[in-house]
Amino acid sequence: MSATLALFTSPGTCALASHIALEDAGLAFEPRRLRFAEGEQRAPDYLRINPKGRVPALATPQGILTETPAILVYIAQIAPDARLAPFADAFAFARAQSFAAYLCATVHVAHAHRPRGSRWATEAASLEDMKRKTPENMAACFELIETSLYVGPWAMGEAYSFVDPYLFTVAGWLGGDGVDIARFPRVHDHFRRMTQRPSVIRALEWERSA
Amino acid sequence: MSATLALFTSPGTCALASHIALEDAGLAFEPRRLRFAEGEQRAPDYLRINPKGRVPALATPQGILTETPAILVYIAQIAPDARLAPFADAFAFARAQSFAAYLCATVHVAHAHRPRGSRWATEAASLEDMKRKTPENMAACFELIETSLYVGPWAMGEAYSFVDPYLFTVAGWLGGDGVDIARFPRVHDHFRRMTQRPSVIRALEWERSA
Repeated sequence: MSATLALFTSPGTCALASHIALEDAGLAFEPRRLRFAEGEQRAPDYLRINPKGRVPALATPQGILTETPAILVYIAQIAPDARLAPFADAFAFARAQSFAAYLCATVHVAHAHRPRGSRWATEAASLEDMKRKTPENMAACFELIETSLYVGPWAMGEAYSFVDPYLFTVAGWLGGDGVDIARFPRVHDHFRRMTQRPSVIRALEWERSA
Repeated sequence: MSATLALFTSPGTCALASHIALEDAGLAFEPRRLRFAEGEQRAPDYLRINPKGRVPALATPQGILTETPAILVYIAQIAPDARLAPFADAFAFARAQSFAAYLCATVHVAHAHRPRGSRWATEAASLEDMKRKTPENMAACFELIETSLYVGPWAMGEAYSFVDPYLFTVAGWLGGDGVDIARFPRVHDHFRRMTQRPSVIRALEWERSA
């Protein structure tokens, strides 16, 4: 028996956000690990599933979905009882989408210049230059989140939403990027509360054991 | 009398996508030009509106929205008669959102390394290295769009959607990035058909006259 949904993921990546959201939604799904160290994300079998060669990819009964902001909202939409997105309020939904887009296109990209600068430049000196600038960029991103985007007690306010697992996932990269999360007290408090949620505990346990 | 919606924009930027979508939606709005050459996007007055110091920003009766994917879906949601997003079909909506996320977080970012590499590195040699790699990255992005993401005759298939003005906007940067759009016949055909739409003609006329 296979689950209706399968999440192609790899520990330590942004796919953790979708993994947590699937747990939050109470949906049946099967996580499938790609071993990045063995290049499985670039293997022909996987490129037929996701030609981008990245994670996450969510296999659904209708086809494959990629890109974290799209997957998170899809999960929210097919599991309405979990109330992970304020679909009925166009402005509130747009604010949540805006936060997710910022995490995807600005914060994740700022982070990626440390481990994956070769996407955008070729010379070793350029990659070192990018790595040196990463802490400053990540700190600036989280300063904006702390002071402008984060509402509290959850990312978008009183209601937990699909933005929370995404913020938690990206905030988890700060230490590796040379930035102390304690510089951002509200984000730090959010991060600690997230680690106590059963959905997060289950997803992280799977990542450790996978 | 002021319009209910105001779009903070600047010619040549990704804000064009939101501008076209507002025209497509038939919504009353006021475009407001920021003069990037004079640094208006970093002026205190604008930073109070959008602390990111970027465009687009959409002023709505409930507050400010930023990030193109969020703004486009907001426009689609408040103007349902324009049918710019397939909200009732979770998978179709997620595919459209996935295309927009790719344009935002991968293609726009690939492009930005040519004019704005100083976001991610400091040394002049690094910025030159990034510029040299931009054509290769933009070509790879559009190869994926041409062969995997683009459905035709519009981006998501038979129905025009919020993805179309975004694809048109980003495809318009290919020439400046050193990539001939004619390498991608389906994207090229889409681009030419877009230039004939009244919404696109109006938005581009405003950009030229602003």
